[in-house]
Amino acid sequence: MTESVLWITALIMFAGGTALLFMGKRRNETEGVMSLAHGIVPIIAGCLYVAMATGQGAVLLPTDATLAGAANTTRIFWFGRYIDWVFTTPLLLVSLGCLGMLQGRKRADLLLGAVTADVLMIVTAFAFSASENVVSRWIWFILSCVAFLGVYYVIWVSQMEANRKESAEVQSAYKRSATILSVLWMVYPVILAISPDGLGLVADSVSVLVIAITDVLAKVAFGFLSLSDDRKLER
Amino acid sequence: MTESVLWITALIMFAGGTALLFMGKRRNETEGVMSLAHGIVPIIAGCLYVAMATGQGAVLLPTDATLAGAANTTRIFWFGRYIDWVFTTPLLLVSLGCLGMLQGRKRADLLLGAVTADVLMIVTAFAFSASENVVSRWIWFILSCVAFLGVYYVIWVSQMEANRKESAEVQSAYKRSATILSVLWMVYPVILAISPDGLGLVADSVSVLVIAITDVLAKVAFGFLSLSDDRKLER
Amino acid sequence: MTESVLWITALIMFAGGTALLFMGKRRNETEGVMSLAHGIVPIIAGCLYVAMATGQGAVLLPTDATLAGAANTTRIFWFGRYIDWVFTTPLLLVSLGCLGMLQGRKRADLLLGAVTADVLMIVTAFAFSASENVVSRWIWFILSCVAFLGVYYVIWVSQMEANRKESAEVQSAYKRSATILSVLWMVYPVILAISPDGLGLVADSVSVLVIAITDVLAKVAFGFLSLSDDRKLER
Ligand SMILES: CC1=C(/C=C/C(C)=C/C=C/C(C)=C/C=O)C(C)(C)CCC1
Ligand SMILES: CC1=C(/C=C/C(C)=C/C=C/C(C)=C/C=O)C(C)(C)CCC1
Ligand SMILES: CC1=C(/C=C/C(C)=C/C=C/C(C)=C/C=O)C(C)(C)CCC1
Repeated sequence: MTESVLWITALIMFAGGTALLFMGKRRNETEGVMSLAHGIVPIIAGCLYVAMATGQGAVLLPTDATLAGAANTTRIFWFGRYIDWVFTTPLLLVSLGCLGMLQGRKRADLLLGAVTADVLMIVTAFAFSASENVVSRWIWFILSCVAFLGVYYVIWVSQMEANRKESAEVQSAYKRSATILSVLWMVYPVILAISPDGLGLVADSVSVLVIAITDVLAKVAFGFLSLSDDRKLER
Repeated sequence: MTESVLWITALIMFAGGTALLFMGKRRNETEGVMSLAHGIVPIIAGCLYVAMATGQGAVLLPTDATLAGAANTTRIFWFGRYIDWVFTTPLLLVSLGCLGMLQGRKRADLLLGAVTADVLMIVTAFAFSASENVVSRWIWFILSCVAFLGVYYVIWVSQMEANRKESAEVQSAYKRSATILSVLWMVYPVILAISPDGLGLVADSVSVLVIAITDVLAKVAFGFLSLSDDRKLER
Repeated sequence: MTESVLWITALIMFAGGTALLFMGKRRNETEGVMSLAHGIVPIIAGCLYVAMATGQGAVLLPTDATLAGAANTTRIFWFGRYIDWVFTTPLLLVSLGCLGMLQGRKRADLLLGAVTADVLMIVTAFAFSASENVVSRWIWFILSCVAFLGVYYVIWVSQMEANRKESAEVQSAYKRSATILSVLWMVYPVILAISPDGLGLVADSVSVLVIAITDVLAKVAFGFLSLSDDRKLER
């Protein structure tokens, strides 16, 4: 089951990414960067879904119960996920930042701020999933959540301020995209906290399925939305 | 034999890189980036050739025959190669892109397009060489070739279009460099497909030698060519 | 002891980084990049100090004596250190370069030159610490020192030249920062050469302590210094 989910998601990602690459507009440099980012994101994810489907993007780790000597069970650590996210989430944030500062100068400090907080979030999240010791695990989880708040801060405070100088259409497009992204990304910490990587309240197959669906929404659906926004905005 | 080839190539790379760094012109920012890229590329390669020569950049993997239980043989997986390529090939492409858009604005989307396709090509190629399972291996090979086509597309279609706005000398220098690069880079997929990583038609020592020669041509010789081009072009 | 040193350093780093992030000025893009860099550097270091304190950022390697069959001892390879440095040292150099070219155009080739030499220095230093073979180890040490000279060259020759076009205040601020950085960074090759990774003249706990103190000076103290410089310089 899980394997089929992974293969199907890989195919959706490749199809979606190719479509986004071909349909994206490139009338100027900003549009070029944005449609490149939205097209390449699902293609990177597709490659890592292939790796997870063939078993190359996952390893088995002992569970807490095993380490305590109470049982002899393992959990699957899908590290391919984090390789995907460490490249794709910065690209999505750069594209969002470009939308927010569409006509104005793309301020390097605002784009860099979002990207560094985001990379810290993903790398500490990797450490969370990789940790065998239960104390270390939750230290990393908290650090990752703090970095996640940093991402929200840049999106909703720093970039929002720069966004106020843009036209009304750009402002509403930015607010809509930022809202959808913020809500969709909230799914990840929740599902991972209750997956076998965290508290173990839901089965691994459930968490894989939920993450696959969210990944398709946050990458392919979000990409098409940005594309249609783009067509409407004047240059 | 293979070890001597690796040490000698390392020395050539260090000598070539140092020469390129000292001889490169830096009259303006674009020239500075280009001569830095051409100088640093062989130095990075030199470091990884040292790692491969000392055995730190390679591991043994079982062959298909071993996995099928038919024999007990191993192949050498030179992973140092991919660490080299993942840094050097983007630098070469950035330098080529700067040449193509020499007087005009360096369009970030065109440079990024070449670099992302290229990194995808190298990372999937790493997965190809690392895969023990024969099916996974050829899936990665095909994905890597598709990314390679993407690199060609950016060089010959997207950047070519931006290149049309340049002077006649810049146009012909770009076309010459792009042709040489495209031909030299074709050697890699061919030799790796028939090396022990792929079909196993040629011995490992042969593939190491062919790749070492191609690497010297694609990095040092190509660097000197760009340097001499540079001296002739007006600023 | 060593564990407490690591935890305490982690706390200092998080506290210092947070303070720097909140106190940093962001009146324009350059200031934004500089205060982001100075704030995020200790936070990255804090994460890696947590990893080293929990044991996730270190592994045991055999010593030279063990490999020679003379004894059965191990040394601790703190690889977390290099993950820290590969991200933080480029950020510190970018910030120094921005200070040096404060009013003028930030020349991409000068910033890139410092960063590539620096990354080469850290990656070869990682290879130095990771090498079990004593010959390989010192080859890497020498390569790392050569790259370190490259960093000094960019700071004191190339960027210094660009710095001459700036106002007298910016020139003296740059010279002061560059001097402090150059002196502090010299501590690292010396202590690592005599630590168990190198000649083994001092105990591991000593080298951890010395590096922790130098790290706090080079990241947090240096950050506050830049901040106070920044307040004084006119925009
Ligand atoms: C804060 C936090 C997390 C957040 C993860 C996020 C926000 C991932 C987003 C991924 C996306 C958007 C992928 C594809 O588009 C984790 C790792 C679950 C665990 C630790 C706490
Ligand atoms: C498409 C493809 C490949 C292409 C590799 C290339 C194009 C490498 C270029 C390296 C250079 C240019 C190095 C130094 O300058 C591989 C990996 C052989 C195997 C999979 C298919
Ligand atoms: C040349 C050299 C080294 C230099 C390391 C340096 C210069 C590290 C700087 C770290 C900083 C500044 C960290 C935090 O801010 C090593 C690795 C010791 C060993 C090999 C030779």
